[in-house]
Amino acid sequence: MEEEEEAKMNNQQEKSQKKNAILVDGVILNGPVADSKSGEKFVEEVNKIIMEEVVKKASDATEKVCEWQSPEQLRTLLDLELKDTGESHPKLLQLCQDVIQFSVKTYHPRFFNQLYAGIDYYSLAARFITEALNPSVYTYEISPVFLLVEEAVLKKMIEYIGWEGGDGIFNPGGSVSNMYAMNLARYKYFPDIKEKGLSGIPQLVLFTSEECHYSVKKAASFLGIGTQNVYFVKSDDRGKMIPEELEKQVQHARNEGSAPFFVSATAGTTVLGAFDPLNEIADICEKHNLWLHVDASWGGSALLSRRHRKLLHGIHRATSVAWNPHKMLMAGIQCCALLVKDSSGLLKRCYSANASYLFQQDKFYDISYDTGDKSIQCSRRADAFKFWMTWKALGTTGLEKRVNRALALVRYLVDEIKKREGFQLLLEPEYANICFWYIPPSLRKMEKGHEFWEKLSCVRKFL
Amino acid sequence: MEEEEEAKMNNQQEKSQKKNAILVDGVILNGPVADSKSGEKFVEEVNKIIMEEVVKKASDATEKVCEWQSPEQLRTLLDLELKDTGESHPKLLQLCQDVIQFSVKTYHPRFFNQLYAGIDYYSLAARFITEALNPSVYTYEISPVFLLVEEAVLKKMIEYIGWEGGDGIFNPGGSVSNMYAMNLARYKYFPDIKEKGLSGIPQLVLFTSEECHYSVKKAASFLGIGTQNVYFVKSDDRGKMIPEELEKQVQHARNEGSAPFFVSATAGTTVLGAFDPLNEIADICEKHNLWLHVDASWGGSALLSRRHRKLLHGIHRATSVAWNPHKMLMAGIQCCALLVKDSSGLLKRCYSANASYLFQQDKFYDISYDTGDKSIQCSRRADAFKFWMTWKALGTTGLEKRVNRALALVRYLVDEIKKREGFQLLLEPEYANICFWYIPPSLRKMEKGHEFWEKLSCVRKFL
Repeated sequence: MEEEEEAKMNNQQEKSQKKNAILVDGVILNGPVADSKSGEKFVEEVNKIIMEEVVKKASDATEKVCEWQSPEQLRTLLDLELKDTGESHPKLLQLCQDVIQFSVKTYHPRFFNQLYAGIDYYSLAARFITEALNPSVYTYEISPVFLLVEEAVLKKMIEYIGWEGGDGIFNPGGSVSNMYAMNLARYKYFPDIKEKGLSGIPQLVLFTSEECHYSVKKAASFLGIGTQNVYFVKSDDRGKMIPEELEKQVQHARNEGSAPFFVSATAGTTVLGAFDPLNEIADICEKHNLWLHVDASWGGSALLSRRHRKLLHGIHRATSVAWNPHKMLMAGIQCCALLVKDSSGLLKRCYSANASYLFQQDKFYDISYDTGDKSIQCSRRADAFKFWMTWKALGTTGLEKRVNRALALVRYLVDEIKKREGFQLLLEPEYANICFWYIPPSLRKMEKGHEFWEKLSCVRKFL
Repeated sequence: MEEEEEAKMNNQQEKSQKKNAILVDGVILNGPVADSKSGEKFVEEVNKIIMEEVVKKASDATEKVCEWQSPEQLRTLLDLELKDTGESHPKLLQLCQDVIQFSVKTYHPRFFNQLYAGIDYYSLAARFITEALNPSVYTYEISPVFLLVEEAVLKKMIEYIGWEGGDGIFNPGGSVSNMYAMNLARYKYFPDIKEKGLSGIPQLVLFTSEECHYSVKKAASFLGIGTQNVYFVKSDDRGKMIPEELEKQVQHARNEGSAPFFVSATAGTTVLGAFDPLNEIADICEKHNLWLHVDASWGGSALLSRRHRKLLHGIHRATSVAWNPHKMLMAGIQCCALLVKDSSGLLKRCYSANASYLFQQDKFYDISYDTGDKSIQCSRRADAFKFWMTWKALGTTGLEKRVNRALALVRYLVDEIKKREGFQLLLEPEYANICFWYIPPSLRKMEKGHEFWEKLSCVRKFL
């Protein structure tokens, strides 16, 4: 009886809704857009899966790092195809489970990689907030909190570099930071470039070490400078740029009539973890009026450790610095800052396009907070926030401990390698990169000549 | 009694831990790194706040879009400073509440913006998964699932453009997509550019309409071409590029000895929402052997609607397309694809740096899945995944409904504007941009001469 009445009422309600419906082009405009209750439920269910399968397993070294499947196998295991009709929630939840199951657990205590150092609960929580709020950090009116947060983080990073002031912008990666710096440098020396381009300007030449990150070459190509105008400076046997060689190369470039403008030193190289001698390089840059960029994407984190910041001795003399807190400091991908010593507004002058639909000049607040025009992007993610949250939670001393612990672990592993048969250390590490050979039993007695190294370099085949 | 015993046991455990401690540089290496239980709890608490304060309020139009505070006020309301010591969990949870409170609710039903169209529960859940797994999409071994997902999404987007095959890459924004295309085009015509740069190459010139997005200028500046070598083609009074004017400009550039190489047409302009006539523009590009890029960052979503895809008639003739599912399709910021008609590997040839530490050639799987070398980035986010999840959940028909609904709402609002006193429509919209004037009572009787328009353009002062 009650059910019948309810059905009747629902029916009446439906009819009345249909009667009042605003119908345009076959769409009922005042009907519900999405079933929000069921949507909320779905998000809650996925959150539960994430807590169980990811967050709570993150500290468990007995779990697998990865359930390896070849591309061909994985394709058959996952239902990847996008179809005309949607899937049910139970099916979607199973897909979420599958995605997690077959993904690499980058937070795993046994996963070793330059980009990862475990799970950070604070930055993770902050990233959930960012995703839920879905901001775009270009103008204050749309991202008030995140712009102030970015300002606070940049200020602190600049303080740790040792500059009195400066400017900066979070952007999608160390590679992009290096591009920003390279373009900024050429704009500083040749401001006409922005309008006129490279034609009519002497051949620009830049310098970096043989051990630099490959993004320096990518940047030179992308910016129209060309990879052959990247002059690679010899490194010593520890992977550090040799200042005398830099001096020679700069002289050589000048003699051939090119225009040297930019040196990209590396603080923490990709393979060996080497730190270029910044002070000596800064002397050369000052002498020749060159922009000194330090790619500290990897090594920058050491600045937070009183014990290890000497690795970056001289960094305060840099003109710009790339620093990625998403690596050793675990802020989550991506969290990368380009920092610039200039505080006269160079970054904005170089990158602004003054789009009138977005960066109106007659707003009712201080438009210096509309930092979007310093960027090559239009919409931009709030990447500073996750690092800010971790810093808030741990304090500088907590971040310092993180760095000290990483480098203490390196000391321990190096000692273990030295003690263990069949392992050979390549060189004493300066930072968190430990390069060693595993020598399989079949090669252990062999003389270390040509054949030995040949065979060792394809050791996978022998295992 | 029991408590005492427990305390005793804990004490013994601690002593035994200290005895077995591995101490290096003052760091106990085999102690716990972080309190994982308390970290997990924190993430759970933040998740609860997100569910209550963001997700469950997302469909509620009675909530505020924004609790406005000036930068100076907001700075005093939030504790932004980063200190030496960390904060307690209750303090951090309060900070999370504050961040949410003072942030703009971009998912709000009353928040109108090109980038936003409400909340999408599926993409949101997918984004939570991505943040928890924290992948970097460069090689298959580190992102097996996300690389296959990206492949599946790109394939489907290419299908909707109408190409038989193609290539593509998700990247951080429509602006960056436009840069990718511009650089790819010049590489195609002048492959030496990658090594040699722009010197020795005739003055490159590109074309776009007056109504284009400002990123085209930014790209020309960043890539070393220079903004004055962007030739702006006149648009008609609906904001569409006039093909005859393009033809004239190309001829003009040829006559002055420049090298025209690239046309960036716009499908959905920023202000008026206009669609350039792609078929006519494609004719001109074919005739002059120019790369036709279509910036469909905003308008691309219409491709999924059988009713509205005619807006992009001719897009299958484009050489490349930028399309952002993070706008009308609600995938979350950022979700942007550059799509390329070429399937001969141009994208990889143009962008690869063959970094040997990452893209080894002797891996035990098909290395064509290591798509990272097609990118200007090194670490890269799994942006395709959130869109894939929404597509899975709604099916193509669900996405189609989303587009149809948005454009039906436009029809409705236009009719309301026409009916209402004090409002004047600027032009009949083609897409989801509705341009209108609000005419305050003091101006309604005034003749529409110089003074009227002058006063109307600073209407804020009159309110």
